[in-house]
Amino acid sequence: MAHRPDRAHLRHRPDHRQQDRQDRLTRVTENPSAPNPVPHVEISRRSLLGTVGAAGATGIALGAVGGALVTGGGEPAVSDSAPGALGATGVAFHGDRQAGILTPVQAKGHLLAFDLVPGAGRREAAALLRRWSATAGRLMAGEPSDTAGGHDTGIALDAGPSSLTVTFGFGHSFFDRTGLADRRPAQLKALPEFSADRIDKARSNGDLWVQIGADDALVAFHALRALQQDAAEAARVRWQMNGFNRSPGATARPMTARNLMGQVDGTKNPKPSDADFDQRIFVPDAGPGPAAHAWMGGGSYAVVRRIRMMLDDWEKLGLDHQERVIGRRKSDGAPLTGGTETTEPNLTTLGPDGRPVIPANAHARISAPEQNGGAAMLRRPFSYHDGIDVDGTPDAGLLFVCWQADPQHGFVPVQRKLDRGDALSAFIRHESSGLYAVPRGPRHGEYVGQRLLES
Amino acid sequence: MAHRPDRAHLRHRPDHRQQDRQDRLTRVTENPSAPNPVPHVEISRRSLLGTVGAAGATGIALGAVGGALVTGGGEPAVSDSAPGALGATGVAFHGDRQAGILTPVQAKGHLLAFDLVPGAGRREAAALLRRWSATAGRLMAGEPSDTAGGHDTGIALDAGPSSLTVTFGFGHSFFDRTGLADRRPAQLKALPEFSADRIDKARSNGDLWVQIGADDALVAFHALRALQQDAAEAARVRWQMNGFNRSPGATARPMTARNLMGQVDGTKNPKPSDADFDQRIFVPDAGPGPAAHAWMGGGSYAVVRRIRMMLDDWEKLGLDHQERVIGRRKSDGAPLTGGTETTEPNLTTLGPDGRPVIPANAHARISAPEQNGGAAMLRRPFSYHDGIDVDGTPDAGLLFVCWQADPQHGFVPVQRKLDRGDALSAFIRHESSGLYAVPRGPRHGEYVGQRLLES
Repeated sequence: MAHRPDRAHLRHRPDHRQQDRQDRLTRVTENPSAPNPVPHVEISRRSLLGTVGAAGATGIALGAVGGALVTGGGEPAVSDSAPGALGATGVAFHGDRQAGILTPVQAKGHLLAFDLVPGAGRREAAALLRRWSATAGRLMAGEPSDTAGGHDTGIALDAGPSSLTVTFGFGHSFFDRTGLADRRPAQLKALPEFSADRIDKARSNGDLWVQIGADDALVAFHALRALQQDAAEAARVRWQMNGFNRSPGATARPMTARNLMGQVDGTKNPKPSDADFDQRIFVPDAGPGPAAHAWMGGGSYAVVRRIRMMLDDWEKLGLDHQERVIGRRKSDGAPLTGGTETTEPNLTTLGPDGRPVIPANAHARISAPEQNGGAAMLRRPFSYHDGIDVDGTPDAGLLFVCWQADPQHGFVPVQRKLDRGDALSAFIRHESSGLYAVPRGPRHGEYVGQRLLES
Repeated sequence: MAHRPDRAHLRHRPDHRQQDRQDRLTRVTENPSAPNPVPHVEISRRSLLGTVGAAGATGIALGAVGGALVTGGGEPAVSDSAPGALGATGVAFHGDRQAGILTPVQAKGHLLAFDLVPGAGRREAAALLRRWSATAGRLMAGEPSDTAGGHDTGIALDAGPSSLTVTFGFGHSFFDRTGLADRRPAQLKALPEFSADRIDKARSNGDLWVQIGADDALVAFHALRALQQDAAEAARVRWQMNGFNRSPGATARPMTARNLMGQVDGTKNPKPSDADFDQRIFVPDAGPGPAAHAWMGGGSYAVVRRIRMMLDDWEKLGLDHQERVIGRRKSDGAPLTGGTETTEPNLTTLGPDGRPVIPANAHARISAPEQNGGAAMLRRPFSYHDGIDVDGTPDAGLLFVCWQADPQHGFVPVQRKLDRGDALSAFIRHESSGLYAVPRGPRHGEYVGQRLLES
């Protein structure tokens, strides 16, 4: 980056002098294996806001923040560009995994796909991924973008990284456009069409996929604009969707997300502590596949579906009816056979009427891993709400994003079952679909996808 | 509300037992004059997150929160429905002013207008405002809605009120539809058409206007659905828009909002501590007007404009050019004549080229109150971003909401000047317009607008 003294006031990186203070709780929220974590303040928003952990830990985190951002005498002694506690939380860009897969889901998200412009090929794609990686690394560290010939928009000024993550993936068509068809992994073959699908092709697929997440909406929008500016003449936006989740600190409940149907959503997600987690979610580093696909070692596949909810119909159902559709209580996500959210559903328990308490077509039964040969995926969705449709119904639902080592053994078999027998099907509609190969996280000096594009 | 024991697990009000603790910092964030503040936990998010105030005060607030939500032993001892710190913050529904005018702007907002259905008149409107007021009061206290024959959607479960506000207003057409034309104040006459306007009538005006704000997106959406359900057969949604602002805690800077152009926005807002604040923003309780308009005493008028930003064009400008368009520095909002954000611009200072440092057509000059006969309004906007338009440009900008005692002496004269001479005009487009009479806040036992509809 060229030194631009007249732009110094545009930098919104946390004040470096503050980093020297020893009384601050810092933590890298992801990628502990990264050799050089980004050198800036990283404070866990979870411990900060008390959504997990003990009172003691909470107190420590908060005291540290108070000390960092405010100094005695009753007057805030912060620079114009000092981020707050939520804003100061950063996620590392470099590491074994790309950020935005294992990162706790953020309050705001943008999903978008780009198509390379006619004439752009492998070289232009490589240059674009290099620019994007540089920008993502800067923005995730709370720095402004440094776009050639332009200047930072300033939209994120004052806020810090706010847990920003940027995640990049490649769609099926990318490999033809760039002459790399021989490197396209078999796992990237097109998803089957499901009987209940109502897919809008204009909002599906695409050469390149970008997922942006942040706990501040302006920080997320700033990243969106910077990445679009980077794309410049190499790629054009094919589709774009906006999503959201609960704000950090809104609930103290050890959180599973709640969706716009009011239902706890994601209870059965595999956990990084599971013995087979890595094997199910990430491509092995040296797998049995052909050498031409080795670039995907350490990567994962993302299935992205815009799932509209028929909320007017859903909300007309009685609560008991809704709970039978799902197979879980709305209040706390516990199975209808009792216990808490994490209690295993008892799929064989019969009710007084002699029928299963969790109905045969309940979503929780149909989607249970044990009912699908152990197929598992890591669901990491955003809700969406695009106002009202022309017919007056809400255009709202779920931007479903799920992660797995092989979608043919993750999303596909589960969706096949849901498509046929899920009681929830009457209240949702899959309106778009995408599948993307998301390579491993970049090492320092590397850009995302370099092993695909340059080896 | 009927007692529904089988629905008890759906309540997401903060545990009442917790209210008895004496070690908690509680604060009513609005309406200190309300005779009976809602009896639930109210913790200032500003002091909590350190965006204002001293380290000492911050420490006290945070310790109290830790004590309230988490108890010893390293295990979170919270009920399934305990809100977090951000979630527990509530705003009073009853009071002299409706909430959502003086309340600090929230992270998420919904603006929507309803039209009464054909056949619905004054009686149906009164019943609707009674239902809406009951629902708004419950939701703002963190309770579920209690819609006749239905049940709460559960979308806000776990989160608490999250600074939810609901604000109601009446449009020009409301008075004809309800046979109350003689009670329509002169201040509600239609806004003039400005030369640069490109107004979509389908997204303008409307009989009734509702503004929802909350710091959690699911809490805001929950309120939206509950109010729509209340409207049922009496009124249909005419238009709806979604907006956002910076998240609490993203910045430690004593905040003026930043907009999607990257510019500090709202610096010259009048402050409640100004001697003439009430006079400029609120209708006097016993003004000189006719008795038929006395119901508006204590109320205010809201002008609502969807202002699209031509971001592709704007971002192509150099930073210096952008700053001359606005007349202020992007970094910190200080006038180009120096100082800090709150320094008065020196409109007569000349630069080395002999021309005014703050150009003749700079937005800050044209919109300055002293250039508009002292016309002042309280701006309280949300940003919006509805994705990309069919032409590939971003459909993003500002949901401008401003408040004043008389729009004919607030918004109108200022917009007349901006419309003719503002350098910013080339980069924005007013796409919708609404003007609403927003009555005073309800007393306990009263509903919003009761003095209009029943006296």
